[in-house]
Amino acid sequence: MLEQMGMAAKKASYQLAVLSSAKKNQALAVMADTLEANSDTILAANEKDIANAQQAGLSEAMIDRLMLTQSRLASIANDVRHVYRLTDPVGHIIDGSLMDSGLQLQRRRVPLGVVGVIYESRPNVTIDVASLCLKTGNAVILRGGKETVNTNQAMVEVIQLALKKCGLPAAAVQSIDNPDRALINELLKLDRYVDMIIPRGGAALHKLCKENSTIPVIIGGIGVCHTFVDECADFDKALMIIENAKTQRPSTCNTLETLLVHRAIASTFLPKLAEKMHSCGVTLHASPEAMMYLSGGEVKVVQVNDEEYDNEWLSLDLNVVVVEGLDEAIEHIRLHGSAHSDAILTRSLNNADRFVNEVDSAAVYVNASTRFTDGGQFGLGAEVAVSTQKLHARGPMGLEALTTYKWIGFGDDLIRR
Amino acid sequence: MLEQMGMAAKKASYQLAVLSSAKKNQALAVMADTLEANSDTILAANEKDIANAQQAGLSEAMIDRLMLTQSRLASIANDVRHVYRLTDPVGHIIDGSLMDSGLQLQRRRVPLGVVGVIYESRPNVTIDVASLCLKTGNAVILRGGKETVNTNQAMVEVIQLALKKCGLPAAAVQSIDNPDRALINELLKLDRYVDMIIPRGGAALHKLCKENSTIPVIIGGIGVCHTFVDECADFDKALMIIENAKTQRPSTCNTLETLLVHRAIASTFLPKLAEKMHSCGVTLHASPEAMMYLSGGEVKVVQVNDEEYDNEWLSLDLNVVVVEGLDEAIEHIRLHGSAHSDAILTRSLNNADRFVNEVDSAAVYVNASTRFTDGGQFGLGAEVAVSTQKLHARGPMGLEALTTYKWIGFGDDLIRR
Repeated sequence: MLEQMGMAAKKASYQLAVLSSAKKNQALAVMADTLEANSDTILAANEKDIANAQQAGLSEAMIDRLMLTQSRLASIANDVRHVYRLTDPVGHIIDGSLMDSGLQLQRRRVPLGVVGVIYESRPNVTIDVASLCLKTGNAVILRGGKETVNTNQAMVEVIQLALKKCGLPAAAVQSIDNPDRALINELLKLDRYVDMIIPRGGAALHKLCKENSTIPVIIGGIGVCHTFVDECADFDKALMIIENAKTQRPSTCNTLETLLVHRAIASTFLPKLAEKMHSCGVTLHASPEAMMYLSGGEVKVVQVNDEEYDNEWLSLDLNVVVVEGLDEAIEHIRLHGSAHSDAILTRSLNNADRFVNEVDSAAVYVNASTRFTDGGQFGLGAEVAVSTQKLHARGPMGLEALTTYKWIGFGDDLIRR
Repeated sequence: MLEQMGMAAKKASYQLAVLSSAKKNQALAVMADTLEANSDTILAANEKDIANAQQAGLSEAMIDRLMLTQSRLASIANDVRHVYRLTDPVGHIIDGSLMDSGLQLQRRRVPLGVVGVIYESRPNVTIDVASLCLKTGNAVILRGGKETVNTNQAMVEVIQLALKKCGLPAAAVQSIDNPDRALINELLKLDRYVDMIIPRGGAALHKLCKENSTIPVIIGGIGVCHTFVDECADFDKALMIIENAKTQRPSTCNTLETLLVHRAIASTFLPKLAEKMHSCGVTLHASPEAMMYLSGGEVKVVQVNDEEYDNEWLSLDLNVVVVEGLDEAIEHIRLHGSAHSDAILTRSLNNADRFVNEVDSAAVYVNASTRFTDGGQFGLGAEVAVSTQKLHARGPMGLEALTTYKWIGFGDDLIRR
């Protein structure tokens, strides 16, 4: 079955690859309208998923993630209209030259072909990914979470309806509705048809893909983010940035998880930190040395254990570690970070420079919150995923990350000498 | 042991990443000189490999590939001096902007970190890869073929000597000398330390890497290249291009393997092709329809079987197929090509355009030989590999393909609103 799906997707991708931006945008507009026109069907399917989730005893928070409402659906349709307005990277000539041989050479941006996306629960991802792939002329095979199987199926049917209305192949957007997990493994081996796999989920999903895929995988989304408070940092501003990085939206991957504090300011800075974190409801996980300056006040503080340095808390929890200085801070980040986002708070140009050069993460910051790592904040217009690997795309991935390039050589009956 | 090697390489990569271009170039110069100064040691080690190869009954051609001479070694040292003169891509600011949030954002090119290269026989690859990695600030773990294990070992010792002379870590260039193939599998799982795997070898090696690596792999090097002769092609020029593409250097991956000929010209063009190919010593593997016009003359022609359409001949053999027209030619290339290099010979602008847009290969040509797909011909200065996959780099990979980028954000104590 998956073989069929892959073949159909590949075939559809050939059609999509030669569409004009105008044609793709028209399809996006029709997709948004068709989603709204069929909201009753989609909401009815979502109700089934919600009922199943309640029966299965899922948490309120989880159920809220799954749930669609008329207004959430309208906002999803509007997201599609936002994608409509982005610039299509396909067809862009990256560079070109008349070579000494006489060859007129250019590199042109083209779609990847077929993208496989494996994700969990949130049903908006279905529409989001489908619209970004359509915009860039890629076919997509979706594999959503089993909790939203009815919603996803209904959504994909509506998308396919929109595609057909525009004379485009329905196989441009397909989904694997069978919840059998073995199908994920099958999808990961479809290298004959699928050009890239994007897992959007937790560490276990990324590990599964990394270990089993014969298709290139974009690893990312896991953020064990650090901020190092240097000895010459401005305390008030540091506290403001730490509060923002930790508490603005704790469940996101760019949230601060471990604070590294220079020993020289530990005794003066940490009591202020304790006070601030108490006011934000943050629980501190302190190294033995940090504990000396954090305990005794009102803030909730526990001893950190070594494994917790690798934790992506995604909650109002923060590791606090006293370090000897910049070298030890960099060392700690190399050992425990996930190469996502790390920041230094300092007045020293020299230390800022060293941090930026020596910390090997997708995003490094000087005197700014790690929360900035985001496609929207980086001006990419959209975010396909956040990559923490180094090939193809690093950090927030915009539309360009859904493309590759092709070398095109024109000759006047040219042979190689 | 490999774990140790990986750890050491990662540690070395941190040092390499912050080196100036001047320092890296100095090391390259020392490397070239040290290679020449130690040529006796290297040639003695090579003699051992040659003796073993002769004892094992390897072919003359194979033994010639393994063999080093004083002059070959001098030319290898000069290749290192050539790398010296290339532009270092590291540190280049790709783009940057002052965002509305106040964040000063830039994307800076940085080394990948640690590269693993698995290759076969040719000992020049050892120096080639080491110099390209050093130039771009990457550490490298080499795994050469067992036929040149003594030569590679001697070469790596000399490189490490040069590195030490320059105060650089010897672990920047390491090789796995144990010929046990299980170590390749171990290397492919070292994702904690190694950032990219480049296999340089045949289809079996690429398959092994694709199926077993948890590290991103650059798939490529296999070229089942096509040329389509359109009905309006100029016969003489077409024959000239075909001769070049097939015979200039048949053992290379950009060599023409299958010729597709428009039915409308089959009866007039194919007899001329037969004559030309006979004069070049090429054996034709003809489809039944092509056979009608190719047989009877002096050229050696046999019936092609379907599996041979997927052959990378790498010899003076050429498949010849008559097709209905452009659509069937594109169809054939999609089915049997390896997405490496494909060409159309035509006077029709419309058909040239369609071919360029619809053939999904790393390089597509109009009225030019497929032999142009090459880092040197494309002005890249060096060629790390030729990628036939779509992520990260496509087609000939220059120095840039050994780098990634890092997002750097400067804030004036900036938080996300």
